[in-house]
Amino acid sequence: MPQEPYQTLSSRVVWRTPWYTLREDRIRLPDGSDGVYTVVERPGAVWIVPLLSDGRMVLIRNYRYTVRRWLWEVPAGGLPEDRTPEETARKELSEEIGGQASGIELVATFYTTAGISNERAFVFLARGVTLGQPDREPTEVMERHIFPVSQVMQMIRDGTISDGPSALAILLCAPHFGFEW
Amino acid sequence: MPQEPYQTLSSRVVWRTPWYTLREDRIRLPDGSDGVYTVVERPGAVWIVPLLSDGRMVLIRNYRYTVRRWLWEVPAGGLPEDRTPEETARKELSEEIGGQASGIELVATFYTTAGISNERAFVFLARGVTLGQPDREPTEVMERHIFPVSQVMQMIRDGTISDGPSALAILLCAPHFGFEW
Repeated sequence: MPQEPYQTLSSRVVWRTPWYTLREDRIRLPDGSDGVYTVVERPGAVWIVPLLSDGRMVLIRNYRYTVRRWLWEVPAGGLPEDRTPEETARKELSEEIGGQASGIELVATFYTTAGISNERAFVFLARGVTLGQPDREPTEVMERHIFPVSQVMQMIRDGTISDGPSALAILLCAPHFGFEW
Repeated sequence: MPQEPYQTLSSRVVWRTPWYTLREDRIRLPDGSDGVYTVVERPGAVWIVPLLSDGRMVLIRNYRYTVRRWLWEVPAGGLPEDRTPEETARKELSEEIGGQASGIELVATFYTTAGISNERAFVFLARGVTLGQPDREPTEVMERHIFPVSQVMQMIRDGTISDGPSALAILLCAPHFGFEW
């Protein structure tokens, strides 16, 4: 299998938002024909699975304007260029649920939507979390809730947790808190 | 919790690609201030977890231009407006791996990237899959591989399967093929 089957002929930024850049490339396809590929460029993001010292998990109920629904999620946020994933994870944990972790570890990474974007997700498990006052941005409309982990797993199985990256982050952390698969 | 905490003041399409539309809304935030929210509008997509009649799983090794890497994935594709999710699942199964399923069922749905997009994923489990000749598009550069499901689960645990929606699709189907969690 060839290392680089697509050849980039030219590249230009066609739109910018504070959260991502839309890049349009003209490419040569493996069959020799030319085409266009548009990439949503994002610097990456973190998802943090927060466990209290009694083993229960903290979820947020998050309003998502994109789908006009309240979704069950774990704390998450985009990666600024001047912070490491772990620093960002600690910052989001603090801002979104007022959480401080006694320990935080990088458990996994994955690509969220490789068909259209280069965004890479960093999944952290935060243990021994204590809860204080959140410090949210005006765009963040969310509530904080605490559940036994067995109930969280059921909420993934039955579709109550419908935010994909949150569900995957929890499942990737699950073997680390006693739910083997 | 309010049903609709954001108010849409105006809305315009700022960019179109064959795969999605970029919509920029001016919104009023819950604190009364105004802001801009950009939504990547996509009609949805299907992911199909294909099991052969002997219980092994078919994965594809898919070149992703966005991240310039070969990723392990399950067959997937965008939802055209004139097809149901199940029709699209059968079509992608046929096109990407030359697969025909004796049975196909919708197991779950999830939002792939609710922070920026309204894309909803439909996860199908395809059983009794027989393999013929794939019929791929010129942009699709991929290979077909067959694995025992225990090995696939290990490939998710160790990060070999780094495509998030594929990993989640497999994990959501897992209790249906004997891997409880």
